[in-house]
Amino acid sequence: MTAAGRGAYLDFNGSTPVDPQVRAAFLRALDGALGNASAAHADGLAARAAIDAARRSIAHGLGADEGEIWFTSGGTESNNWAVLESVAAQPGPAHLVVSSIEHKSVLQSARRAQERGAAVTFLDPRPDGRVDLADLERALRPNTRLVALMLANNETGLLQPVAEAAALCRSRGVRLLCDAVAAIGKIPVDVRTLGCDFLSISAHKLYAPKGVGVLYIRAGVHLPPLILGCGQQCGMRGGTENTAGVVALGVAFERLAQGAFDPARTARRCAWLWDAIREICPSACLNGAGARLPNTLSVAFPGYDATALQAALAERGVSVSAGAAASNGALSHVLSAMRAPEELARGTLRFSLGAGLEDADLELAVRVLADCLRRSTTRAPAPVAVP
Amino acid sequence: MTAAGRGAYLDFNGSTPVDPQVRAAFLRALDGALGNASAAHADGLAARAAIDAARRSIAHGLGADEGEIWFTSGGTESNNWAVLESVAAQPGPAHLVVSSIEHKSVLQSARRAQERGAAVTFLDPRPDGRVDLADLERALRPNTRLVALMLANNETGLLQPVAEAAALCRSRGVRLLCDAVAAIGKIPVDVRTLGCDFLSISAHKLYAPKGVGVLYIRAGVHLPPLILGCGQQCGMRGGTENTAGVVALGVAFERLAQGAFDPARTARRCAWLWDAIREICPSACLNGAGARLPNTLSVAFPGYDATALQAALAERGVSVSAGAAASNGALSHVLSAMRAPEELARGTLRFSLGAGLEDADLELAVRVLADCLRRSTTRAPAPVAVP
Repeated sequence: MTAAGRGAYLDFNGSTPVDPQVRAAFLRALDGALGNASAAHADGLAARAAIDAARRSIAHGLGADEGEIWFTSGGTESNNWAVLESVAAQPGPAHLVVSSIEHKSVLQSARRAQERGAAVTFLDPRPDGRVDLADLERALRPNTRLVALMLANNETGLLQPVAEAAALCRSRGVRLLCDAVAAIGKIPVDVRTLGCDFLSISAHKLYAPKGVGVLYIRAGVHLPPLILGCGQQCGMRGGTENTAGVVALGVAFERLAQGAFDPARTARRCAWLWDAIREICPSACLNGAGARLPNTLSVAFPGYDATALQAALAERGVSVSAGAAASNGALSHVLSAMRAPEELARGTLRFSLGAGLEDADLELAVRVLADCLRRSTTRAPAPVAVP
Repeated sequence: MTAAGRGAYLDFNGSTPVDPQVRAAFLRALDGALGNASAAHADGLAARAAIDAARRSIAHGLGADEGEIWFTSGGTESNNWAVLESVAAQPGPAHLVVSSIEHKSVLQSARRAQERGAAVTFLDPRPDGRVDLADLERALRPNTRLVALMLANNETGLLQPVAEAAALCRSRGVRLLCDAVAAIGKIPVDVRTLGCDFLSISAHKLYAPKGVGVLYIRAGVHLPPLILGCGQQCGMRGGTENTAGVVALGVAFERLAQGAFDPARTARRCAWLWDAIREICPSACLNGAGARLPNTLSVAFPGYDATALQAALAERGVSVSAGAAASNGALSHVLSAMRAPEELARGTLRFSLGAGLEDADLELAVRVLADCLRRSTTRAPAPVAVP
């Protein structure tokens, strides 16, 4: 998918374009579902029926029951909800275990819980980027309320042992939150296979509009609402439902089930891109090791300044993420937690692919990348050892 | 605005249809603002520029500075944020004063604060539906953190003395939250004239899509974020911005400034409707007294069952709200707080008008209403005294 013909958009982990069929359903709901879904008149009932149908599609897609699907404003709210209200759900001193490569919405919620009295263990992964189950087991305490472990890391694409962690947690009576925001649409996501108690997703990572997400809450698990209102969603999440957004996410799940986003094709393109990158920059290396999302390349260009590279690519219409550097110049918390050498972290670009990309987009990206690497003034003269 | 030609939609206080120009801008943003507004590439920067422009329009429309406008998922989240985090902003025992006719998002947040240790005074209005300033003054305590008083009540349309209450609060060093969700677009809303510290609005009450809202926070007032993420909105509200929704709200404010929603025309239609209702049901009376929103009629039909009337109207395509009865059959908390006789509360329908309505819509509504009143089997034989 090129953005208005200007170049190549390779930042699907940041956000995805809206799928044409999702867009059409979204517009039908926007124009048709006039009423407030809480209203008893025809317009309100139509909105509620549309939301119920979407909930069924999403539940089906996640292997969940309809009653386990709760709509939020996005993955960030879903993560905040599970973390903050797990602490509030019971009185007494709470302990949380949170992998230190989680999304900031999980980490910041955990820090808030900590400020407000909870104990939190931030669990570093091994240098390969994967959280070690033995470390997790050691971190558990009798009062551990929640473990947060994402299914796939959004920066590196590395998969985490969620099913194994969930089994461990279940045996200890501890709940597990699985942030599946980066994984959805790229690898199978099934709540029963994973065995998690909470799972969060975001519509705009699945070819649907921004502003909608889901928190799966396993039946029987008590979680107080985060946002309180007029009893919408059985009192679990206040606020007039974003009917059109919810409908769009439902259709995105239908499209996913139909294979519309073709992850195998994306995986092939991703492999091609990695080969091409290594050809133009033999010192380039992938951060971490082991199973990863088939659409994501977290590539360290040793000796390069990724922020400058990203800007040079952006100027020529190639959108990627300088995953390593936050806007304040700090290094990626993910690569830091993996103990990546600073030089590799500073030289890391994230290429994330998705549906609708054409060969020409990738060829353009590689051409521009080769040129930007050649022109870069920040390249270190000697190749850097790769750990 | 008739809903797909089926009838007459008179539930604008529940939700508004999307204005055509707002819709067009929304779609342009949906299709154009591909990126995540936090991303540094062209697609991300375009999204951020669009959000900044919308923030300027909204700030201008509310008489606020740009830096005082924070985007949320809707009025409910805005209200939760102001109430819950006002308590959390400082340690020590907190006291809140909340009018008992506030929206449930305010009341439920206050109840949660109460459950978690705060003291809360729920302030009943006078029987005319207006909160008494002397009552408010008596309710203030040295540790009062927040007063919540809505600008206009969504059920009755009655205006509240917010500017006077804010002046009182200011003199006592107490913050005031003004829920302006029901008022926006219908009467002028200016944060400096009101003198409030927080003000909440919701896009879908102003001819823009559902899923977006604003919390105004007066410059210099400290409020911790409610939802934590990757530093979006200066760390004040985590989560990828709903770019298209925000852009739509910005254009809705521009349309409002242009007079596109023509409140004077709505006021004339509302007066016509009230005359027509009295003609077909002389015992009908308006709940409360004093200044009210020019688009809202909260009409008690003494001796009638509003839930049955609402359903009968809905069956014939006329959408109104049975404001009195919640889905569980409980009476309206607003009318109860006003000490309305149960018979009036049980017989109350809310007619709320807005832009795009035609004479024919109102004539249809009145014809159908007359017929439903005539056929109603629940009408009390004798007229009921009106307080």
